[in-house]
Amino acid sequence: MKELRINKQRLWDSLMEMGDIGGTDEGGCARLVGTDLDKQSRDLFTRWCEAAGATVSFDQFGNMFARRPGKNNDLPAVCTGSHLDTQPTGGKFDGVFGVLAGVEVLRTLHENQIETETAVEVSVWTNEEGSRFQPAMQGSGVYVGRFDLQEELNKTDVNGIRLGDELARIGYIGDAKPGSRNMGAFFEAHIEQGPILEDENKTIGVVRLGQGIRWYNVVIKGRSQHSGTTPMHLRKDAMVATALITAEVENIGNRHKNGLGTVGFMQVFPNSRNVIPGRMNFSIDLRNPDAGVLKTMNDELLAFCEKIAAERDLEIEVDNYWYFAPVEFRLSDDVEAAARELGYSHMDIYAGAGHDACYMSDIMPSGMIFTPCEKGISHNPAERTTPEQCEAGANVLLHAMLKASARISQQHHQEGSVTEVA
Amino acid sequence: MKELRINKQRLWDSLMEMGDIGGTDEGGCARLVGTDLDKQSRDLFTRWCEAAGATVSFDQFGNMFARRPGKNNDLPAVCTGSHLDTQPTGGKFDGVFGVLAGVEVLRTLHENQIETETAVEVSVWTNEEGSRFQPAMQGSGVYVGRFDLQEELNKTDVNGIRLGDELARIGYIGDAKPGSRNMGAFFEAHIEQGPILEDENKTIGVVRLGQGIRWYNVVIKGRSQHSGTTPMHLRKDAMVATALITAEVENIGNRHKNGLGTVGFMQVFPNSRNVIPGRMNFSIDLRNPDAGVLKTMNDELLAFCEKIAAERDLEIEVDNYWYFAPVEFRLSDDVEAAARELGYSHMDIYAGAGHDACYMSDIMPSGMIFTPCEKGISHNPAERTTPEQCEAGANVLLHAMLKASARISQQHHQEGSVTEVA
Repeated sequence: MKELRINKQRLWDSLMEMGDIGGTDEGGCARLVGTDLDKQSRDLFTRWCEAAGATVSFDQFGNMFARRPGKNNDLPAVCTGSHLDTQPTGGKFDGVFGVLAGVEVLRTLHENQIETETAVEVSVWTNEEGSRFQPAMQGSGVYVGRFDLQEELNKTDVNGIRLGDELARIGYIGDAKPGSRNMGAFFEAHIEQGPILEDENKTIGVVRLGQGIRWYNVVIKGRSQHSGTTPMHLRKDAMVATALITAEVENIGNRHKNGLGTVGFMQVFPNSRNVIPGRMNFSIDLRNPDAGVLKTMNDELLAFCEKIAAERDLEIEVDNYWYFAPVEFRLSDDVEAAARELGYSHMDIYAGAGHDACYMSDIMPSGMIFTPCEKGISHNPAERTTPEQCEAGANVLLHAMLKASARISQQHHQEGSVTEVA
Repeated sequence: MKELRINKQRLWDSLMEMGDIGGTDEGGCARLVGTDLDKQSRDLFTRWCEAAGATVSFDQFGNMFARRPGKNNDLPAVCTGSHLDTQPTGGKFDGVFGVLAGVEVLRTLHENQIETETAVEVSVWTNEEGSRFQPAMQGSGVYVGRFDLQEELNKTDVNGIRLGDELARIGYIGDAKPGSRNMGAFFEAHIEQGPILEDENKTIGVVRLGQGIRWYNVVIKGRSQHSGTTPMHLRKDAMVATALITAEVENIGNRHKNGLGTVGFMQVFPNSRNVIPGRMNFSIDLRNPDAGVLKTMNDELLAFCEKIAAERDLEIEVDNYWYFAPVEFRLSDDVEAAARELGYSHMDIYAGAGHDACYMSDIMPSGMIFTPCEKGISHNPAERTTPEQCEAGANVLLHAMLKASARISQQHHQEGSVTEVA
């Protein structure tokens, strides 16, 4: 069992074949949820999994599950999965790598006629990207009960087309209630989508925590005035206030260990070169894997905005409209052990972006495996990784899943013994 | 002569009547160049001037001249004028006040049967606002030779309609070559379009200088990356660099006497809340009435941008694509003397915006009179001033013109004497 390895070339070929569905001239992929391309990718996934001896089903939200039975099929299954949908200008690996690494696990078990202790499952979560329908991580969010099934099925795209209608149209609405499966562990392999592993020259990222995230909408109201006739001391310049807060967001990010602070979105009113901006709308994104530190960062931001508002006699509204609590990946020791045993260089890392595994960890122990991607580029046709990096990630996934399966079986027998004694 | 005063109510009624041509529901005015409304306003101006004993003509660019003869009509005329076109969402006073104050001067001279030393002229300059056709101050710019007549007549609006065709259509292209008149002095009364007079509680602004202006386009190229997966030390954040430069633009404005610094326009790429901006385009507007100080401000800006580019390993292009040299209003002593003799509170002030008088000062001594406007609001339907403020400005204009007329006559006689002696 320790010598078991996935097939590098087969995994890479599958990634390329899946990438052709919605493949773009720039080498990327555009495969949005509920489209004919989505159906094609789901059909292909089904064929591959069935060829590897698994049975494929899907729930009322179109989340798919390829199940390969084990020795004891009443035990909670050991699962992996990710998503097949992409950004409109996405790459071939984000999400897809995690699904196909799971398929490759199924194939490897199948061709080596391995009987795992528990069943093994590979899932495809509907609409992780949140591009055509919002929010992101929709399918896993529905599965774990963060979102209401009907509400999410009723979401419409920019053309007013309902997600539920599109899933029905492509034949991927099932009978099973989301959340009803017997799952005992969830792993997700994913490209890092950041530059750290490449920068540190490591093959595997052991994802210990999913960062906490606070998203803010800020509105600053000053006074629009002529840039040539208004002396500096009579201005209420919303742009300069925004600039000072933007610089402070960077300071807050720098000041705290593992802190991140970003202003990515901005609207200027009236946005004319000879008019002092009277109103600014912009976003702030603060992240930290430690909820307490993230709260401190929040408090520092609010205090700074208050100070600027008072000093400059401006109206500043800071709306922290979204908070995503840090996620602890309780199976990261399995991931680390697998990486170590397989001889891959590895390091602890944080998940900076949201992933289906973040939601799955609500209801079961979960773990994530990161693999490097060139220059950290993702959500872009230039998203790149190598066959060797994918191979390493899939091998770590395989052995982490085997460890979890063995542990679940062992825990069951221990519990069984206890029950017998009692 | 010293007791001569314009008629406050008549001036105000004329402002309201002119404001009805293109008047908007919000109480403002939308009267763009070359439109039927433009024709109506020019026709009304003509009727009013003719009723006050003046003869109206226009040149090949549609610039209009209402001339009232004086004692010696071979001497250079003393002139005033401004514009009748407005911004698309303009007010009733910007430009119009200057023209109608001139009309009121004609009426006052006419009804009091005053024979001035020289001829007196009131001009209407085509397209000062630069809204439908660019650039601004087009008619006066053509008149003084800053712009080429044919080139400007060929300018088209967003629908591809040619300015020359529109002026011909409304009947306002004449035979006279722009720049061919015998003018010896030019005055322009204008609402301040800034908050200084109101803030200082003064009735008249004696405009000593037109500020020098430097306009810049700045492009910062960093790297677009995921806000959740890119550690602070691996970022090339174009937004933060922009913020630091924006804050420094304010510092530069504050650091120098009469300095102004504004960032009014900004574009963010890709402008998404979870992406570090990889590219920023923005404007910088620096102003100072002293050309040397403005140059120092420019040098400080460039040095700061270079420092940021070096510290942060970013590409920063700073293009100072437009420079407007400071303008000296050589007739401001006439304006000050008139304000003092009439007993109006007054102060020296700078013209922050561009005005027709800035270009006229290229070819003759010029002067500007500012009057307060509520909260400094202009280019807006909420542009407001009072009958009393307009009255004061028109009275100062009247007496400044009489002073200039007398001086031109006196200079002529002195020169004549010298000639006779020689």
